[in-house]
Amino acid sequence: MGFSVEGVEGIGEITAGADLAAIIAGAASLEHGDILVVTSKIVSKAEGRIVEASDREAAITAETVRVVATREYDGGVTRIVENRQGIVGAAAGVDASNSPDGTVLLLPVDPDGSARALATGLRELTGRRVGVILSDTLGRPWREGQTDIAIGAAGVHVFDDLRGQVDASGKALAVTMPCVADEIAGAGELVKGKSAGVPVAVVRGLDRYVGDLDLPGARSIQRPSDRDLFRLGADEAYDEGYRAGFDEAQAEGGER
Amino acid sequence: MGFSVEGVEGIGEITAGADLAAIIAGAASLEHGDILVVTSKIVSKAEGRIVEASDREAAITAETVRVVATREYDGGVTRIVENRQGIVGAAAGVDASNSPDGTVLLLPVDPDGSARALATGLRELTGRRVGVILSDTLGRPWREGQTDIAIGAAGVHVFDDLRGQVDASGKALAVTMPCVADEIAGAGELVKGKSAGVPVAVVRGLDRYVGDLDLPGARSIQRPSDRDLFRLGADEAYDEGYRAGFDEAQAEGGER
Repeated sequence: MGFSVEGVEGIGEITAGADLAAIIAGAASLEHGDILVVTSKIVSKAEGRIVEASDREAAITAETVRVVATREYDGGVTRIVENRQGIVGAAAGVDASNSPDGTVLLLPVDPDGSARALATGLRELTGRRVGVILSDTLGRPWREGQTDIAIGAAGVHVFDDLRGQVDASGKALAVTMPCVADEIAGAGELVKGKSAGVPVAVVRGLDRYVGDLDLPGARSIQRPSDRDLFRLGADEAYDEGYRAGFDEAQAEGGER
Repeated sequence: MGFSVEGVEGIGEITAGADLAAIIAGAASLEHGDILVVTSKIVSKAEGRIVEASDREAAITAETVRVVATREYDGGVTRIVENRQGIVGAAAGVDASNSPDGTVLLLPVDPDGSARALATGLRELTGRRVGVILSDTLGRPWREGQTDIAIGAAGVHVFDDLRGQVDASGKALAVTMPCVADEIAGAGELVKGKSAGVPVAVVRGLDRYVGDLDLPGARSIQRPSDRDLFRLGADEAYDEGYRAGFDEAQAEGGER
């Protein structure tokens, strides 16, 4: 039981309107059960999701549904937000690298839809039953550095749902549900890299996770904020509490 | 540029005092540059880090340095804490599965030290320059499911520090520092699984990340809590703020 991860060479620069399925099918030799990890940047480029860099802050605001936390640093503010795609991360996924000077890239409008279109095209063109994961690079609480995660998925089980199964010693795995889509996206990053110009990786040997095109996408990985213990940054939640406590004490004082 | 991930068969059940380096060296055929992803559970077992299950809550408390957030559910409370190893996660890494009935497993006392001892032993026994990552399974904010991450590392670069390098379009990658140790740990999980009894994976082809035994370990991945925007759960921070605001308003009222 093993798998391999290989970068796909020769994809070249992607521009608006590019037929990604045709380009990838031409560059990679695919087999049944392969999972393609595709850097979301090239999907954004193919979909023309590019704006002038002078509008970066405005672009972040426009992509933001909800501010989770902010941090000031010399010369600016980092905003951790929930974006239109439901993903919590820095700068709403707006990327200043990987695009021509003076421009920034936005995430695809509907990453699961983009993944589904790509998987559909690749299956038609190659005759192979493949899955597609769109990846993006995110920081995370409590741990330095970034990892690649799945922001879109099609034809792939995003979870390995083990709830109800037993471990090697026979005990129930009550809450165990590995997010294999995120782990596969991270494995893809290890060959794609950030500077190598290799935007697609082929993961071979995990065909047990490949399935129908109408499987739940990466959206199903996102936890609704009302169920999340970290729906707000600590400072933001403290400030909200402070105002509420202050107002409550004043109201009580006024009643005396 | 690619890599492979293979599970190591035949490791068998690990008990206290087991010589893991000898057992793994006997079961795997290693090459220069291999990275071994070792489920921390078998390290805990070899180190005798096992306690009676009746003490599970007490064990969690004993392993806890700082409570980050709690959530009540039917029949109990989930505690997200920073544990002795500096890792923020549920239940301080205390694991009720994967151990004999009536017992729970604690994390290794010093995961980086355990990884270093294992890497040292493997290098001596095999003559191969290998790296070791100890993995554990953790949930995360904002995303459902769990992924495996690195809680210990030796002989491996835990980050691919790209700060100062340029992307394919020539722009500086200012803050990009992929946590390759976490991505490799996640890749290992995809072959080890939770119920398959395969506690070790060999990652071959990423020898560029293998290095000296005195490289910084997984501890260097942990962000100090005073620099973390999510050092407390939203409810906990709100409550702290509420009490502070309430007290402040009362104090101001008393001065009138």
